[in-house]
Amino acid sequence: MLPGTTAALIRDPQVAAFLSDEAMLDRALRFEIALAEAAADCGAAPAAAAQALRERLAGFSPDLDAIAAAMPVDGVPVPELMRQLRPVVGPEGAAALHIGATSQDVVDTALVMGLSQVNDLLAARLASVETTLAALSARFGAQSLMGRTRMQAALPITAGDRIAAWAAPFPRHRRRLADLRPRLECVQYGGAVGVRAPQGDAIAAGLAQRLRLADAAPWHSARDGIAEYGGWLSLVTGSLGKIGQDVALMAQQGVDALRLSGGGTSSAMPHKQNPVSAETLVTLARFNAGSVGTLHQALVHEQERSGAAWTLEWLVLPPMIHATAHALTLAHAMLSGITAMGEG
Amino acid sequence: MLPGTTAALIRDPQVAAFLSDEAMLDRALRFEIALAEAAADCGAAPAAAAQALRERLAGFSPDLDAIAAAMPVDGVPVPELMRQLRPVVGPEGAAALHIGATSQDVVDTALVMGLSQVNDLLAARLASVETTLAALSARFGAQSLMGRTRMQAALPITAGDRIAAWAAPFPRHRRRLADLRPRLECVQYGGAVGVRAPQGDAIAAGLAQRLRLADAAPWHSARDGIAEYGGWLSLVTGSLGKIGQDVALMAQQGVDALRLSGGGTSSAMPHKQNPVSAETLVTLARFNAGSVGTLHQALVHEQERSGAAWTLEWLVLPPMIHATAHALTLAHAMLSGITAMGEG
Amino acid sequence: MLPGTTAALIRDPQVAAFLSDEAMLDRALRFEIALAEAAADCGAAPAAAAQALRERLAGFSPDLDAIAAAMPVDGVPVPELMRQLRPVVGPEGAAALHIGATSQDVVDTALVMGLSQVNDLLAARLASVETTLAALSARFGAQSLMGRTRMQAALPITAGDRIAAWAAPFPRHRRRLADLRPRLECVQYGGAVGVRAPQGDAIAAGLAQRLRLADAAPWHSARDGIAEYGGWLSLVTGSLGKIGQDVALMAQQGVDALRLSGGGTSSAMPHKQNPVSAETLVTLARFNAGSVGTLHQALVHEQERSGAAWTLEWLVLPPMIHATAHALTLAHAMLSGITAMGEG
Amino acid sequence: MLPGTTAALIRDPQVAAFLSDEAMLDRALRFEIALAEAAADCGAAPAAAAQALRERLAGFSPDLDAIAAAMPVDGVPVPELMRQLRPVVGPEGAAALHIGATSQDVVDTALVMGLSQVNDLLAARLASVETTLAALSARFGAQSLMGRTRMQAALPITAGDRIAAWAAPFPRHRRRLADLRPRLECVQYGGAVGVRAPQGDAIAAGLAQRLRLADAAPWHSARDGIAEYGGWLSLVTGSLGKIGQDVALMAQQGVDALRLSGGGTSSAMPHKQNPVSAETLVTLARFNAGSVGTLHQALVHEQERSGAAWTLEWLVLPPMIHATAHALTLAHAMLSGITAMGEG
Repeated sequence: MLPGTTAALIRDPQVAAFLSDEAMLDRALRFEIALAEAAADCGAAPAAAAQALRERLAGFSPDLDAIAAAMPVDGVPVPELMRQLRPVVGPEGAAALHIGATSQDVVDTALVMGLSQVNDLLAARLASVETTLAALSARFGAQSLMGRTRMQAALPITAGDRIAAWAAPFPRHRRRLADLRPRLECVQYGGAVGVRAPQGDAIAAGLAQRLRLADAAPWHSARDGIAEYGGWLSLVTGSLGKIGQDVALMAQQGVDALRLSGGGTSSAMPHKQNPVSAETLVTLARFNAGSVGTLHQALVHEQERSGAAWTLEWLVLPPMIHATAHALTLAHAMLSGITAMGEG
Repeated sequence: MLPGTTAALIRDPQVAAFLSDEAMLDRALRFEIALAEAAADCGAAPAAAAQALRERLAGFSPDLDAIAAAMPVDGVPVPELMRQLRPVVGPEGAAALHIGATSQDVVDTALVMGLSQVNDLLAARLASVETTLAALSARFGAQSLMGRTRMQAALPITAGDRIAAWAAPFPRHRRRLADLRPRLECVQYGGAVGVRAPQGDAIAAGLAQRLRLADAAPWHSARDGIAEYGGWLSLVTGSLGKIGQDVALMAQQGVDALRLSGGGTSSAMPHKQNPVSAETLVTLARFNAGSVGTLHQALVHEQERSGAAWTLEWLVLPPMIHATAHALTLAHAMLSGITAMGEG
Repeated sequence: MLPGTTAALIRDPQVAAFLSDEAMLDRALRFEIALAEAAADCGAAPAAAAQALRERLAGFSPDLDAIAAAMPVDGVPVPELMRQLRPVVGPEGAAALHIGATSQDVVDTALVMGLSQVNDLLAARLASVETTLAALSARFGAQSLMGRTRMQAALPITAGDRIAAWAAPFPRHRRRLADLRPRLECVQYGGAVGVRAPQGDAIAAGLAQRLRLADAAPWHSARDGIAEYGGWLSLVTGSLGKIGQDVALMAQQGVDALRLSGGGTSSAMPHKQNPVSAETLVTLARFNAGSVGTLHQALVHEQERSGAAWTLEWLVLPPMIHATAHALTLAHAMLSGITAMGEG
Repeated sequence: MLPGTTAALIRDPQVAAFLSDEAMLDRALRFEIALAEAAADCGAAPAAAAQALRERLAGFSPDLDAIAAAMPVDGVPVPELMRQLRPVVGPEGAAALHIGATSQDVVDTALVMGLSQVNDLLAARLASVETTLAALSARFGAQSLMGRTRMQAALPITAGDRIAAWAAPFPRHRRRLADLRPRLECVQYGGAVGVRAPQGDAIAAGLAQRLRLADAAPWHSARDGIAEYGGWLSLVTGSLGKIGQDVALMAQQGVDALRLSGGGTSSAMPHKQNPVSAETLVTLARFNAGSVGTLHQALVHEQERSGAAWTLEWLVLPPMIHATAHALTLAHAMLSGITAMGEG
């Protein structure tokens, strides 16, 4: 919904690749193939059908325009995807297609497969930020800085003291991510109303193994994993926003002797260097903070599937992920561009 | 940030056209031309320069990729736009370019010019929804329906009673829009720090007249018009979400004898008709409700320009506008597709 | 829910008086008396019963503890109130008690009667803040100040320029309040399912006149007036939060030569003066901004009465009103305590 | 801010006791005593002074009214508390009072000491809800229920299937609480600007041990523990809100044969039983969901102490804790009162 120049303030290209329609539908196909195989392993589908399905789906590319066009009517991409897949798998593969599955199984599983990739990326970027903070401390940590409370000069500290406060949450964020991943990156397999057929547990286990996800009971209407994840994203951007706010304040002339390379230019004052990255970190923190509140509204997910609550997740979560990934990149660059901090 | 199939659940193509980069930059050029002329009228710029500028900018198309690339550095599109415009207007037009203006003047004014178009659109769609509700009442109003409070059957009412409750807020929404437009669709002209040069008031008046906006004092750091507007958008989607929630509940089999044409299909239960539009209206209401809270955070806009707060508006407001425009279309279609309501 | 020392940061004693249980129930009794009289005027209740009811309710004080105890069960105070009132009005008044009314009629009407008092108060305080800003400008307006954009020194302005930016939204806030009051301060009278009996319109008109409210169709499930009001409250605190943020920044030593009397003390640094009021204004702005998002969630008010959505209003709106009233008082005091601003 | 009858919808008496002014200040005194002892152990304070301080503070009751009165000025309760304590500890204890500490150390540590009590309570209530769900499943699990997706009848399930979906998040919530407690229930000891004196680490360790908290680096400006905790609270109420929403829908006559004892009464329809508890669970879920968004805004905590951000935590977190504790009690009672569910 944001035009390209504005989107540039929040969009992360790697996240965009992981969450693109193409990637989502590719993972949907991998779900269908893994499902056919897992079902065949349990005797819930003919092995030949599973093999046929795998062969026919290899290299198939869904018609995205048709799926987008069906979206407002169906509310999910899967019914149209199935309309496209049935002729492709043909009668040979039909007996292994979408066995015991429903749209939500495909979409939720394809989502968390993508989130698994995202989380590897974010973990790496968190580590980069931590490394940069350590380097900053090594370089400027002994410099003197005025400690400020309630926006007033209080007592002198060192730049290292402040950098330590910036860095403190990141090991916790890493730990939180490690804690939550097994609760988030779980296969969803429950069928029409979230109740598995007799062999469903074995099929789910096979699916999980093939897709490198945690095995789990259906979570079709228990969305705490998604909401918890949104909270984590906002914790990360919140910690980065705190750094951004401090850097913007420190960049005030005559205050804390912080200098940044690569600041923004002004259309009216060519001499001025704006701490645009620092400010953007604050923006992204506030954006995610507000968004996490909206995402938690989707926890009230009525009955066996709430279209209203589920759809809300799709509108809110992806921008939060972009914001987090972009903020990490931005923070890394901003911190790397600090050329002076405190007084020697 | 939302891939195409998901974006289809919220995106409105007409809004996309009004808020596109192309449209925003086209309005930015119209701002620069009108500014040159208004300045020339006051003697603040040479008339010849203003004329040269107008001639040279006619037909000029900015390099959007370069602007998007500069965005994360500059935080606004205008510095790069100016870098592109200066050689175009040449020495002949330079004396009339960007007179007394700053990036925010261009961006805020170009935004509200677009919002003016958006508001005409939304007003027309509000009227359509009202007409559809009146037609629905004319058709089914006398049918009997169970009135329900706290989700329990209470006493019989008519379908017309419920439709009247649905329709009640819309005249108020129209009135609110009329009330707020003069506070929102205002020229912004304040220069680097929001303080006009001596002839600035006359230039602003000329700008406003040329751009069909209200004349106003600079509102560079007073963002109440934007936040109020976000609130209005959410009031509209809230009223539509209430209708959507009711329709989804009425569509429950054996409850209120409501039938909808054009429901969504299920990948697992081909016989099932899902009230996808009704649910999406609830989603969009909750999305906007959460977003308005985030937008209000941007009211704390420090000093003469807060990059952090201003940027937050850009991330939050456009999706809200899409959600509102799309919800109106969706509601119109959904209400038009009701083929039975209540008992005769 | 906030203990006394914390509540002192947000609580306004006059608002507390207007929204107290005692005041709400006193207005509930006034509603019942006015209803009896309006019904008698239309012949919908015996005049003698109305007179008996009025006489018996004069001086009656409800048992608040019993009402609070029944609250979690009934979800509203009115059923228990009615259990208390019936023996009081006796058989003589019974025929005029609660004619065609339901709990929501009593609670919503008693609420907006209280909001009418609140709004008179807030309007007066808005005027005080405007007066104080004008006085501040008269005293310091000609002083010089560094204009700051994106937290960086930009170009010199005057203190009067900044104060003008602070003051700009307040006339709009006054106008908005005047615009919305007729949409908010409306009688609610709809009975069990929001559908009036034949004489209901006349009764509603009589009620409205007696209670000095606007006459209106039932708004039992159309809550846009409440949500709009919450938005207005947050616009006001947002404008005050911007002032608070600026003052906190200006109070930084060596920055803008602002001095405040009456700052907070520190337990660790006795020499330090903290701009506590300025910071609290930011807090209250962010509190209300978040709250307005939650309040808008209550617009999805299903069917003829949603206990879930209605109750949410009660939890969210009163703290927003306190925050607004308190912020106005705080801003007035803080601005009055500025003893230096800018350089001469 | 909520009058008693409304507060009854959210207030939990045990939480109120843990978070009362009396309890907070009692913990503040325990902090000061433990600090004196820990300092004496390290030789940072005379042992005799520590002993005198302990003896004199035993039985001391702060003047709460004076603290509340100083709150709007100081922004924290500690400066006035110190004014009260100094004459009490006298010259004998003075050398051991508030050694190396600041207001934030006292308030944050006293808060998390209270949260530790709260968390024991919430863990016990979570267990009760789980037990009740298990009992419900044992009783009605085999009954038949219509599975519903997108609010439409889909396929039959059992009551046990739905109860299993309700119960699924609770073991995760327990695990999350266990994960986060060591990150939340941490001593705060950092002094005026968050930088400990040479013996500070040893003092902090002694404090933590005496107060049964985790030892930790100062977290004065790293508020991720608080924000994470708010997210957890909202995850819990979200899961309960989902149950409440389902119960309210199931209680619809003619839908799912659910019967509840102890429903609310109506002032207009004496025959009606309202599922007030179920609706209130939805309310509390939406309240907390919105609140968590506001709480995350407080992560942007500038410099060494942000009065604005810190104060925001105090306004938002306590009502969230009440809502969670109350929702657990309410859910337990509601689930215990289900006397029929599904068809046999």
